[in-house]
Amino acid sequence: MRPQIVLFGDSITEQSFRSGGWGASLADNYSRKADIVLRGYGGYTSRWALFLLHHIFPLGSGMPPAAATIFFGANDAALLGRNGEKQHVPIGEYKDNLRRIVYHLKECSPTMLVVIITPPPIDEEGRMAYARSLYGEKAMKLPERTNEATGVYVKQCVELAKELGLPSINLWSKMQETEGWQKKFLSDGLHLTPEGNAVVHQEVVRIFNEAGFSAPEMPYDFPHHSEIDGKNPEKAFQLQCI
Amino acid sequence: MRPQIVLFGDSITEQSFRSGGWGASLADNYSRKADIVLRGYGGYTSRWALFLLHHIFPLGSGMPPAAATIFFGANDAALLGRNGEKQHVPIGEYKDNLRRIVYHLKECSPTMLVVIITPPPIDEEGRMAYARSLYGEKAMKLPERTNEATGVYVKQCVELAKELGLPSINLWSKMQETEGWQKKFLSDGLHLTPEGNAVVHQEVVRIFNEAGFSAPEMPYDFPHHSEIDGKNPEKAFQLQCI
Repeated sequence: MRPQIVLFGDSITEQSFRSGGWGASLADNYSRKADIVLRGYGGYTSRWALFLLHHIFPLGSGMPPAAATIFFGANDAALLGRNGEKQHVPIGEYKDNLRRIVYHLKECSPTMLVVIITPPPIDEEGRMAYARSLYGEKAMKLPERTNEATGVYVKQCVELAKELGLPSINLWSKMQETEGWQKKFLSDGLHLTPEGNAVVHQEVVRIFNEAGFSAPEMPYDFPHHSEIDGKNPEKAFQLQCI
Repeated sequence: MRPQIVLFGDSITEQSFRSGGWGASLADNYSRKADIVLRGYGGYTSRWALFLLHHIFPLGSGMPPAAATIFFGANDAALLGRNGEKQHVPIGEYKDNLRRIVYHLKECSPTMLVVIITPPPIDEEGRMAYARSLYGEKAMKLPERTNEATGVYVKQCVELAKELGLPSINLWSKMQETEGWQKKFLSDGLHLTPEGNAVVHQEVVRIFNEAGFSAPEMPYDFPHHSEIDGKNPEKAFQLQCI
């Protein structure tokens, strides 16, 4: 049985297997070594994620995941009184929800490598332009998310990871280090371009490597073809398969 | 529990989660509906695949895969007396091996949707150019595979699918219908470009749809965000999660 890596999050996780996506790139890295399990739910908040916890990470499973990424907050940070109001989760509850998710995963398996990823930054102009492209004159007049408000959620997310001694990826800060991040990394002011996906991929790989969960150092599930003797293939498979 | 779709094959399956890959595209299509399980083994032949069968598709599993693609033959068709000689599998044995794989999968689950994919065509010039780019003067002087020899394996592969009443994808013929297939679909005379991956993806989706395993018609594993009432989220989750 191969180890599993579960990607648990919102649309930025759900879309991570599109062309150039960070999830697909991970699946390629861990091909023949670990399975990447996609559990991304577009539009979901940390509050709604709690309903899925016991189903995606059942307690008492004989083979719990070896690692998981938790990637919520972009929707929690939607503002009250604007278009995404129903997704808004108060900042204190957001932090509590993340804590509950982490506790559950650690109860599921104390050795699970849990990595928390903050939401990306918001390009408010990009959000508005995207809304206009969809709805024209009827588009929202004010963005449903702001970069500043999302930054408040990011801070709590990073603090929680520190409190719990978990690795985290501050995507919000990391992306804003690059000039032109608004269009380079974000396709609609929120979701990721292939370049934005590459940032997430690179950061997840870095954290996994630092935690000793490096794909190049993991064994293949079955022999590499170079180890197979054409005249006596049984030999290579003897240990694992016969 | 979500249905599983296992992609079982050689390097063309193993590499199917690279950017634009057909496996990643399937994972995106079936996101929130089914899990795509990557079981691609670079360099493997149908003969070596047999050693893995009971491990990848254990009998008596409580939840066998709902569907599987079998995608071997590109290596079996390597010619005797050339560079890939150790991979060569005689044509009769190739057909027998495929039959054994199918029988095993049907024993694993009689309702499993099994789709057989033929190897792609071979661009012999592309293979030679690729070898020269790696080894210069020391490169092989004759290609280790020919399009004609691969065509013989393709014919047996398609015939077997007909004998067993299984859907198949004749990638070899399909790709050669397009002018300039040699460079358009193949990156090194054998492996797939993003355009070549798109052909496989499109054909697999077509077959899955025809077999009633269409992603758009399958239910989401958990509620779509539009079905969740912000003030009363419990309601949407009640049936599945509480």
